[in-house]
Amino acid sequence: MTTLAEEVLAGSRLALARLLTLIENEDPQGEAALDRLFPHSGRAHWIGVTGSPGAGKSSLVNRLAQAFRRPADGSPPRTVAIVAVDPSSPFTGGALLGDRVRMRDLSGDPGVFIRSMASRGALGGLARTTPAVVQALDSAGFDIILIETVGAGQSEVEIARLAHTVLVVEAPGMGDDIQAIKAGILEIADILVLNKADLPGAENALRTLRAMLELGRPPHEETAESLPVVWRPPLVPTIATQNEGIAELLGHIQAHAAYLRQSGGWQVRDRSRLQTQLEELLQTALLKRWRSSLPEGQYQQILTDLQARRISPYQALHSLLGEPPLPQSIQRGSTALFNA
Amino acid sequence: MTTLAEEVLAGSRLALARLLTLIENEDPQGEAALDRLFPHSGRAHWIGVTGSPGAGKSSLVNRLAQAFRRPADGSPPRTVAIVAVDPSSPFTGGALLGDRVRMRDLSGDPGVFIRSMASRGALGGLARTTPAVVQALDSAGFDIILIETVGAGQSEVEIARLAHTVLVVEAPGMGDDIQAIKAGILEIADILVLNKADLPGAENALRTLRAMLELGRPPHEETAESLPVVWRPPLVPTIATQNEGIAELLGHIQAHAAYLRQSGGWQVRDRSRLQTQLEELLQTALLKRWRSSLPEGQYQQILTDLQARRISPYQALHSLLGEPPLPQSIQRGSTALFNA
Repeated sequence: MTTLAEEVLAGSRLALARLLTLIENEDPQGEAALDRLFPHSGRAHWIGVTGSPGAGKSSLVNRLAQAFRRPADGSPPRTVAIVAVDPSSPFTGGALLGDRVRMRDLSGDPGVFIRSMASRGALGGLARTTPAVVQALDSAGFDIILIETVGAGQSEVEIARLAHTVLVVEAPGMGDDIQAIKAGILEIADILVLNKADLPGAENALRTLRAMLELGRPPHEETAESLPVVWRPPLVPTIATQNEGIAELLGHIQAHAAYLRQSGGWQVRDRSRLQTQLEELLQTALLKRWRSSLPEGQYQQILTDLQARRISPYQALHSLLGEPPLPQSIQRGSTALFNA
Repeated sequence: MTTLAEEVLAGSRLALARLLTLIENEDPQGEAALDRLFPHSGRAHWIGVTGSPGAGKSSLVNRLAQAFRRPADGSPPRTVAIVAVDPSSPFTGGALLGDRVRMRDLSGDPGVFIRSMASRGALGGLARTTPAVVQALDSAGFDIILIETVGAGQSEVEIARLAHTVLVVEAPGMGDDIQAIKAGILEIADILVLNKADLPGAENALRTLRAMLELGRPPHEETAESLPVVWRPPLVPTIATQNEGIAELLGHIQAHAAYLRQSGGWQVRDRSRLQTQLEELLQTALLKRWRSSLPEGQYQQILTDLQARRISPYQALHSLLGEPPLPQSIQRGSTALFNA
């Protein structure tokens, strides 16, 4: 008799799909299997792909998957998992439509595994379970994991940030060019892609993006060995539907991986991600443990006092933790700063 | 000598602006002042305005502010605060541009206060400090607080969710109509607005939105007194630039406030928001307290073991909390389900 984790390690796609469903449902059985798989994780290259809706991220991800499967330079094919994080509901058809396109391009290749995560209304759940899903795919032995998110919002950006390499994808003529490019997104870009580079306005968009990259760039620094110690995000024009620019993009992705391994950035991103994960587990566990030690009536009473504005949130906190409230001196301090 | 909190209560706009800056910087002095102001909060109507980029939210918010200032039905003017949450960086000009438009429309009215929150690269900070900023404005005595977010992402949606009343604003021809409307956003709409209703495609967009609303609607229920116990989100076409549909929209907002007060929903939303706030404070405080009781070397060693994949995140958690690891029986349980 084999465990689910062992089946996943043996390469069963069915077992992997079951595991991911357990993880998405936050089932303790999924957590247990994931924990068992954890020693096998840490080898995949996580690539986040984010950017404005309509920039053509899905087509680009499909082309990248195909390129990793049949490298133009004749190097051995890499196995690829795609995680598409789509906050559209099933009834809008968004996620399903994307899947149908993917299936046409990538189906039949056993070296490609595709998982769409639609929210089904549970907005918070996506952000919570995506890291675990990617970790499961990493443990299952995929070389490359492409994480595609609609990068207009903070949480989507944070999901993309999980990755070793972050691609930010824009397209010309997405409404107001200047407002469309969020600085928060630009700041996390390891590689900036202008897709649909054959559309009108592409030259203008390239100029704007180049100017923004120049503005955001740290001064050029070199080590004694003349290796760049900072990564300069390249700007790569592509036309995913015509497979143009994909080989060049792949080259930049591989160069970024090499840079990360050389600079130690790979380990830094890995450790920081694991620390975040551990601290989230700790916060939840500590709150749960503390709540179980507290009479339920006391907690509800404090909430009622809070709602009636009889006590403030900080007074509630300190009362629950059995600590003295904030000293008046802090408040006096703030006053002293601002009053004559 | 008066405190900053007292100056805010006395109506000083300068003191209020200083307080908001302290809060945005997560300065303990801001927290102390906010805590002192807390008993004065809980009276404002919080209205969240979210939706796709380019839907004309800023213009709509300006028009709403003007309408609240000079109600068409001759009722007394309400004071209005606007919080514009814009993840654009200063150097893209997004937030500044929006401010300039606002200034033109609303400047010189002492009954209107405007605060733009731009991220300056700190993506996480916006979500953390926005509720406190709104609470400060509530305590400062504004009747209406309009919270405007670019609602394409999860966190922006969560910010809008703070509100008593959530407006979701769309416009015709925003790329692919069907994909643009995220179900997650539609689900939080108390009022759905189609702005720019004079653009081509408006009829089609209205039809699509109406169909989506029908799909998402719970069956009609009535109480014994024939009062609707569920709120049916209305669909309101507007042309903000021409001030069309604004009076009707205002009517729906006031009807929603009346509904919330009658149904008890007002209290439910208030309590749930305060509970979330308290639990976030508790989680942070508990983690901090627990960390301070732990030798730093032990924590770093566990992180190193985690990174080397010698232990798993759950093993790390249980080891740090001094609990036994997950029993094997859970893993066997999951196996039994899936193996013959």
